[in-house]
Amino acid sequence: MNEQKLIDIMSTKNYDLIVLTTRLNGAINGITIAWAMQTSIKPLLMTVALSPKRFSYNLVVESNIFALNYIPKDRKDIIGLFGYKSGRQVNKFENIEYFESQTGSPILKDAAAYLDCKVVDIYHSGDHDLFVGEVVEADYKSLDWFQSRDFKKKAA
Amino acid sequence: MNEQKLIDIMSTKNYDLIVLTTRLNGAINGITIAWAMQTSIKPLLMTVALSPKRFSYNLVVESNIFALNYIPKDRKDIIGLFGYKSGRQVNKFENIEYFESQTGSPILKDAAAYLDCKVVDIYHSGDHDLFVGEVVEADYKSLDWFQSRDFKKKAA
Repeated sequence: MNEQKLIDIMSTKNYDLIVLTTRLNGAINGITIAWAMQTSIKPLLMTVALSPKRFSYNLVVESNIFALNYIPKDRKDIIGLFGYKSGRQVNKFENIEYFESQTGSPILKDAAAYLDCKVVDIYHSGDHDLFVGEVVEADYKSLDWFQSRDFKKKAA
Repeated sequence: MNEQKLIDIMSTKNYDLIVLTTRLNGAINGITIAWAMQTSIKPLLMTVALSPKRFSYNLVVESNIFALNYIPKDRKDIIGLFGYKSGRQVNKFENIEYFESQTGSPILKDAAAYLDCKVVDIYHSGDHDLFVGEVVEADYKSLDWFQSRDFKKKAA
């Protein structure tokens, strides 16, 4: 297998811009993630892949809750707050407003949309684990985090 | 939960344009899918969600192989060949060229890129099942199926 070609392909895929948030008792955290997708219609399930190395991994395992916050295109500064560092060292929520979701996960006030999820299954997948979450609450302020709406409409 | 808002969010997510192909002995088939994502770096795993109702579901369960064919933006006609009908009734490959991958899955000659996968695990997820596949071969002719490269480069 041509490794460079494989890397090119994987880095070229479409990704939504997402911050996964969770809460375990008093501890809240959020991390940028790229690997989240719908995996069932009824019930509506979202599956996310998390590395056991991430601080949020253990929080989600213990709390069984996570929320997916979809970040607007023009708020890439939010990615800077939640990527590149660990919640073990810093309080990532210090400079951003949030409210508590139905399950207790923090929801970023500036998220374009969010999906509030309860974990129903955890599966193994190589160096990540798959968290299958049932969507129990959802809302949006805008849909401007979508990158290829025009394209998808035409393809439908 | 506001069901309409939930539908709006789910229909607004980013998706790659993918035809999943597989082979069981002499039977080949391909279906358009929206739910496929990377779920491990080492080994490199791709997870796809398939409904047991799909003809390809049983083929993949039996053969343990599938390939992901990424369709170029300007070849939406290919989606027409592989969506909206079942391989039980028609030979979807009648009017399109393909070659055999390393594992045996058919690869569309006009795919921009493909990932050839061997199933390593199958998990339950509501009305779909998750097929975790190890990428054993990959190649591309172009990367023009990517919708938001400019955006992602800036966000990185």
